[in-house]
Amino acid sequence: MSFADHIRVCNNYDRTRVVPLIAGERRIGWLRRDNAAALARFPAVFAVEPDRVHLVARGDVDTVSAAVDEVVEALVLENRLPKWRNEIFDVMPRWGEKPVFRVDRGAVAFFGVRAYGVDLNGYRRDRGGVHLWVGRRAPDKRLAPNKLDNLVAGGIGNGYGVAATLAKEADEEAGIPASLIERAVPVGAITYLMENEIGIRDGVLFVYDLELPEEFMPQNRDGEVVDFELMPAANVIERIRATDDFKFDVNLVFLDFALRHGLIPIEDPEYLAVASGLRRPFD
Amino acid sequence: MSFADHIRVCNNYDRTRVVPLIAGERRIGWLRRDNAAALARFPAVFAVEPDRVHLVARGDVDTVSAAVDEVVEALVLENRLPKWRNEIFDVMPRWGEKPVFRVDRGAVAFFGVRAYGVDLNGYRRDRGGVHLWVGRRAPDKRLAPNKLDNLVAGGIGNGYGVAATLAKEADEEAGIPASLIERAVPVGAITYLMENEIGIRDGVLFVYDLELPEEFMPQNRDGEVVDFELMPAANVIERIRATDDFKFDVNLVFLDFALRHGLIPIEDPEYLAVASGLRRPFD
Repeated sequence: MSFADHIRVCNNYDRTRVVPLIAGERRIGWLRRDNAAALARFPAVFAVEPDRVHLVARGDVDTVSAAVDEVVEALVLENRLPKWRNEIFDVMPRWGEKPVFRVDRGAVAFFGVRAYGVDLNGYRRDRGGVHLWVGRRAPDKRLAPNKLDNLVAGGIGNGYGVAATLAKEADEEAGIPASLIERAVPVGAITYLMENEIGIRDGVLFVYDLELPEEFMPQNRDGEVVDFELMPAANVIERIRATDDFKFDVNLVFLDFALRHGLIPIEDPEYLAVASGLRRPFD
Repeated sequence: MSFADHIRVCNNYDRTRVVPLIAGERRIGWLRRDNAAALARFPAVFAVEPDRVHLVARGDVDTVSAAVDEVVEALVLENRLPKWRNEIFDVMPRWGEKPVFRVDRGAVAFFGVRAYGVDLNGYRRDRGGVHLWVGRRAPDKRLAPNKLDNLVAGGIGNGYGVAATLAKEADEEAGIPASLIERAVPVGAITYLMENEIGIRDGVLFVYDLELPEEFMPQNRDGEVVDFELMPAANVIERIRATDDFKFDVNLVFLDFALRHGLIPIEDPEYLAVASGLRRPFD
């Protein structure tokens, strides 16, 4: 592996393999052509044309969401996608706008709608330099089981803002109290566009840094992380370069941390590949 | 203005207005179509085809550079570009590779070859929050006269590496001694692609942060900066949002600083536009 390989993995999107999903005049998703074809059976909800799909269900957010959910249930029966049944995501043309509909998290990549999450770099400085808290994902996670992960990360579901998601996940995943998570500093976002088994993952991660005191020890409460380790940041970066041990997008978040904190020297042959590869411009 | 306006100004490149400049099998520049046409008079150096231009001069770097320089001299006589005569840039397919030729800085945008520079954010923390040192460019600067600028910035010329350029410019532009500039932290790069009067500016800025002591006072030595001011970072950001007072690409560098230091709240409607707009992926 190389740094650039991890960036490529998260940006393997190929425009020729997808068609836009359009609501009104706005694109809200990217449908892989096989997924678009699968929607042709639901003409009351989606109008499938050769080079685009229109959302045609009409009504308020609840009504459209219910119509889309019926489609999702049918697709679940065909094993085209999993339904998570515990997390609902808002679908918006752009962040901050009103949702067009809400959908089960399992269907987000099927429709290729943009998915927002938070990611927290929890770090410590001491005589040995910068250290990062790294978690290991539980073996029963749907996505990337057993992979190494950031201290805190999670999707932004319906009803939660960015800061509220961070506080909730920080508490559940790592036992970070409110008084500590308030000190987390928002430091930008990672954006990528990736084809996976289900469809297109249009990912936006709001990134926070939190310098942690020496006495802090993370404690997982929700069973999603099996253990935590405080690793020298330099070791994290070399392990990213050499292995596939980290969850796909966590490689990008840690590379961004390393870059911002001066932990990748400018002489590194991949310096500009990293600096220019972590924030894909929106289309 | 808005943050996104500044990003758009620096990324107004339009692929349909240019053709690639190719050396061997590799693209080394983007030639605006009028510039490509102007090269047809020099068939011993450039082979102009409808959808591309090949560098056909052969020999070692010195020989090819001399051949290109004859073309540059002829174009200067036609007022197609200025010659600076004091800074020579290396032209490389990719950073770190061997140069194909060297060229006067004034011709860099004409050929649309990638231009590398350094940019230093000099900041101070005190009870009033983060402050940034801001310079004002001299009225006789070729590029962006009178505009507000970063504390230190400069192009990376032939014979200088990134750190050496930073140290040289820090000394000349702001009187920062070697003992202080050594503490500057490399924190990434800004990349953009912009059409200007001369051609295409394919810009890469290596960005450094330097926390400065209270007693530090910048002193310009080369006449390129007329004065310096220590501004609250929040004022810099609001002035960027509201005005065109800063040099075009300096807006992007300060926005990146603000983002990395948590000075732009996630609730800002332009947060994601900024986070995703400062590092254009390389083609």
